[in-house]
Amino acid sequence: MTDQPGSRPRAVVLLSGGLDSATALAEAIAAGFDAYALTVLYGQRHTVERDCARAVGDSMKVARHLELEVDLRAFGGSALVGDGEVPKDRQVGDMAHGIPATYVPARNTVLLSLALAWAEALGAFDIFVGVNCLDYSGYPDCRPEYLQAFETLANLATKAGVEGAGRFKIHAPLLTLTKEQIIRRGHELGVDYSLTHSCYDPSPEGLACGRCDSCTLRLAAFEKLGLEDPAGYAGI
Amino acid sequence: MTDQPGSRPRAVVLLSGGLDSATALAEAIAAGFDAYALTVLYGQRHTVERDCARAVGDSMKVARHLELEVDLRAFGGSALVGDGEVPKDRQVGDMAHGIPATYVPARNTVLLSLALAWAEALGAFDIFVGVNCLDYSGYPDCRPEYLQAFETLANLATKAGVEGAGRFKIHAPLLTLTKEQIIRRGHELGVDYSLTHSCYDPSPEGLACGRCDSCTLRLAAFEKLGLEDPAGYAGI
Repeated sequence: MTDQPGSRPRAVVLLSGGLDSATALAEAIAAGFDAYALTVLYGQRHTVERDCARAVGDSMKVARHLELEVDLRAFGGSALVGDGEVPKDRQVGDMAHGIPATYVPARNTVLLSLALAWAEALGAFDIFVGVNCLDYSGYPDCRPEYLQAFETLANLATKAGVEGAGRFKIHAPLLTLTKEQIIRRGHELGVDYSLTHSCYDPSPEGLACGRCDSCTLRLAAFEKLGLEDPAGYAGI
Repeated sequence: MTDQPGSRPRAVVLLSGGLDSATALAEAIAAGFDAYALTVLYGQRHTVERDCARAVGDSMKVARHLELEVDLRAFGGSALVGDGEVPKDRQVGDMAHGIPATYVPARNTVLLSLALAWAEALGAFDIFVGVNCLDYSGYPDCRPEYLQAFETLANLATKAGVEGAGRFKIHAPLLTLTKEQIIRRGHELGVDYSLTHSCYDPSPEGLACGRCDSCTLRLAAFEKLGLEDPAGYAGI
């Protein structure tokens, strides 16, 4: 009976439809949580992410999947929400230098704040996020010191944190893994990566470009593992 | 020429349409900033707040006023977004005990995150918020230690903070003022409080109830100052 929904503690999992967040969701479930998946539709260039997030959530039988619209396009300032070009054809080794145009101002802070709001309303103290600081694209809000600062904030910010009913914890199980290690771990946990999607600039049909930083990192990792990436790519 | 828009540094000001945020906006302008007002429509029970925020923004000639919808009702957990009753007829002295049903989970963290996102996109480093920790209703996210933690987070979270172009600062000019002091200061700065609205549970016509914590605090402060509150109240 311990596997029945409701008998396990709840965790909110930020689910984008990408490879990393799908793996983070699998980790949350493997750790014994009932998973409450939150997909924030923040005005990305594409809706394929939403469809992938739904498919991933369904395949892992989340307790609930909530989609919330927050149109960060109103603020501007990122190629990922329509301002400027997504960089293409960069080598993995070049991505460590500087923060690219796909950086969305304060994105993870907005996402984690919303996850915190839902967690508190659910009586949950655990939040999972699929960030990692090795094979990342140089984003400041993917670093361990950032996540630690958010955890501190969460416990000061909330009624649940202040009243001592529990202590909020930000889980970033992929934080120090390489992309290959993430994929290997996901396979162990049964993640179906054909349902996921990582491209910053997919075709209108939802095919990945194969050339943005995110595609480049993902393809290189599958290749190193001697596996074929099951995502659909355009023209490669 | 120094008063021309564009020649002064920019600040994002969270503007709810209430007495406190109107005063915080006046402080930002008095401090020499071009004010970028952000109103987050998070599913409050009423739309009168939005109308007041627009009137206040217009009256103070903000550089820009942005309204963003983020429907926190999806998460539930607060009387302020439709879950349960707004407490009425409490005395000012009783409000220091416990966190009331009008607490919205992680609200100020969500609001400040969005303000941070816009600030970074605007090239601004200053964010004004009208919280205060004296005549407040016991909310954890109105305390100085919370605001300090958010400021720390902001500088870790962002490209602008990490690259050292400046340092984000959260300004809470009302933090340690009583409601009377806030109103007195607002009058000095020329705030027109007839445009503002503080009620948690207004009538369908937009009249304040006069009985919720927020109305009680506001009315008591005007009375102590020997002034009439210019807001419209229902039945008192």
